[in-house]
Amino acid sequence: MGADLPITFADVVAASSRIAGLVHRTRVASSRQLDSRTGLRVFLACENEQRTGSFKIRGALNRLAQLAAGERARGVVAASSGNHAQGVALAATIVGTAATIFMPSDAPKAKVNATRGYGARVEFYDRETALPADLVEDFSRRTGAVPVPAFDHPAIMAGQGTVALELLAETGPVDAVVVPLGGGGLLSGVATVVKTLQPRARVFGVEPADGDDWVRSLAAGRPVLIDPPRTIADGARTRQPGVLTYRVVSRLVDGVVTVTDDDLAEAVRFLGLRMKLVAEPTGALAVAALLAGRVPVEPGSRVAAIVSGGNVDPGMYARLLTNDARETSPGR
Amino acid sequence: MGADLPITFADVVAASSRIAGLVHRTRVASSRQLDSRTGLRVFLACENEQRTGSFKIRGALNRLAQLAAGERARGVVAASSGNHAQGVALAATIVGTAATIFMPSDAPKAKVNATRGYGARVEFYDRETALPADLVEDFSRRTGAVPVPAFDHPAIMAGQGTVALELLAETGPVDAVVVPLGGGGLLSGVATVVKTLQPRARVFGVEPADGDDWVRSLAAGRPVLIDPPRTIADGARTRQPGVLTYRVVSRLVDGVVTVTDDDLAEAVRFLGLRMKLVAEPTGALAVAALLAGRVPVEPGSRVAAIVSGGNVDPGMYARLLTNDARETSPGR
Repeated sequence: MGADLPITFADVVAASSRIAGLVHRTRVASSRQLDSRTGLRVFLACENEQRTGSFKIRGALNRLAQLAAGERARGVVAASSGNHAQGVALAATIVGTAATIFMPSDAPKAKVNATRGYGARVEFYDRETALPADLVEDFSRRTGAVPVPAFDHPAIMAGQGTVALELLAETGPVDAVVVPLGGGGLLSGVATVVKTLQPRARVFGVEPADGDDWVRSLAAGRPVLIDPPRTIADGARTRQPGVLTYRVVSRLVDGVVTVTDDDLAEAVRFLGLRMKLVAEPTGALAVAALLAGRVPVEPGSRVAAIVSGGNVDPGMYARLLTNDARETSPGR
Repeated sequence: MGADLPITFADVVAASSRIAGLVHRTRVASSRQLDSRTGLRVFLACENEQRTGSFKIRGALNRLAQLAAGERARGVVAASSGNHAQGVALAATIVGTAATIFMPSDAPKAKVNATRGYGARVEFYDRETALPADLVEDFSRRTGAVPVPAFDHPAIMAGQGTVALELLAETGPVDAVVVPLGGGGLLSGVATVVKTLQPRARVFGVEPADGDDWVRSLAAGRPVLIDPPRTIADGARTRQPGVLTYRVVSRLVDGVVTVTDDDLAEAVRFLGLRMKLVAEPTGALAVAALLAGRVPVEPGSRVAAIVSGGNVDPGMYARLLTNDARETSPGR
């Protein structure tokens, strides 16, 4: 972790004191059934129970807490149909600034309502005719609003890393840390913490098999662009690693593994029906990899993993739960 | 709490040391959204995350831990298609005795498999031609197996009361405690604890409107038998209070309120989509009453409530989650 990386451990510690008391210190869950199914000792950071239902509030709040007074007066702008929208919306309300969120006109009404419920103004755009990045840039130029990227920004990455500070404080020494991977904001922050506090622990990212921009990029030695992924992990449909996140992940992370949508469905069912914990498919990426045996760790290892979000679409969640008769038995 | 009641506070304390380390000390959850919706400060004991997915393991284990050596050699027997089956099954495995569980031949395969998974032998019977109580009595006479009732037994009631010891230790002083109510085992144990540790706190039971045997019995001044209830709260379809539980509840409990199936559905959705916590309808009885404003407490009161189980049928759970568009927004 040289000074040449975009974030340092000190940045995460600073983020932690900025957001302390404003976000939940989420619990760490464990399960005999999960341990017995994986042959590991697993600790799950329940960021599905975080405010706004995902870890995204951490990074957004860390960014917004650092706005200058003039910036705060002009507001912030972001584009997202997912958890970042809600994170920015609530963070803006907390710091007392206005948020404008561009969402596709076909975004689920529940997500639109939630984003508005946290206090943001929602602007719709047509996926066919407009690019969200252009809309954000144009809006920012016209109004002076500060753009809040979803992952490729040091303050976002440092904010997400605060999960790992809390998680490792609960678990003590671990052999590995396993993290859902979309744009890489969470993984960058977590890896920065783990490699400082427990340098011998290995760090793995988990992305969808049909959204393997990271696996391909790391193999190519540079961020590559993939076709639009088709996966139920809607939060990990990124087509290309971020510039900054790529620098951190390629330097600090020990490996990236992939899981199929079937693996994700099984993990969502396991978490719901056995552990009684609602996770969205993207949020279940790390657990899916552990259940499917895709994480290269020794049997009996102590493994920390992040359940990164719980904002399920009720219809999709219902279909996932009823998909597979093998997974319907209750209890643990 | 005179010596004339079937259980005392000391019985619950003794139960607590018998089962310590063998069952989970479940977490106490809270939610800004729940507080804001109810106008209260609510603390939820998450017994849906208990081993076997409900509080039932507490009472079963307290009973089985007190078997004499000869009894343990002969095994135990119970009739249940619900959470009691799994509680007895796991308790038997823990204490090293054999369990036979009579289940109706149309019991959900998931529940049968779970009960077997915890180590019990399952015997099927035809609902049309056999009464489970007769089967248990006959089996017990033939084999010497010890019957384990679902609620109307001092050891069961005392075991269930251990939830309240843990809950009040977390919450500190509360104004009221709200408890799901079927046969009254849980409510009896909880009331015994609350009226000892915090005698000024009021205790309420919550039962389904179409399974209001307790409301009617308390009005009549004696246990009355009602028609078979139709409610999604399958764990609270009791037709008559127990003899022992009636004595405790009628003496110690401040009131019993009812909720509709719509109230229950809303509570299950709230717990799942907002708090990311899987509860079965019976387990959501107390939360349903709080959300529906049925519990007579002052605004701003500190209220402890129990989420008693999370063993959902996936198909029913899926239908409940997708039933109502108002409740589909994520996060909290």
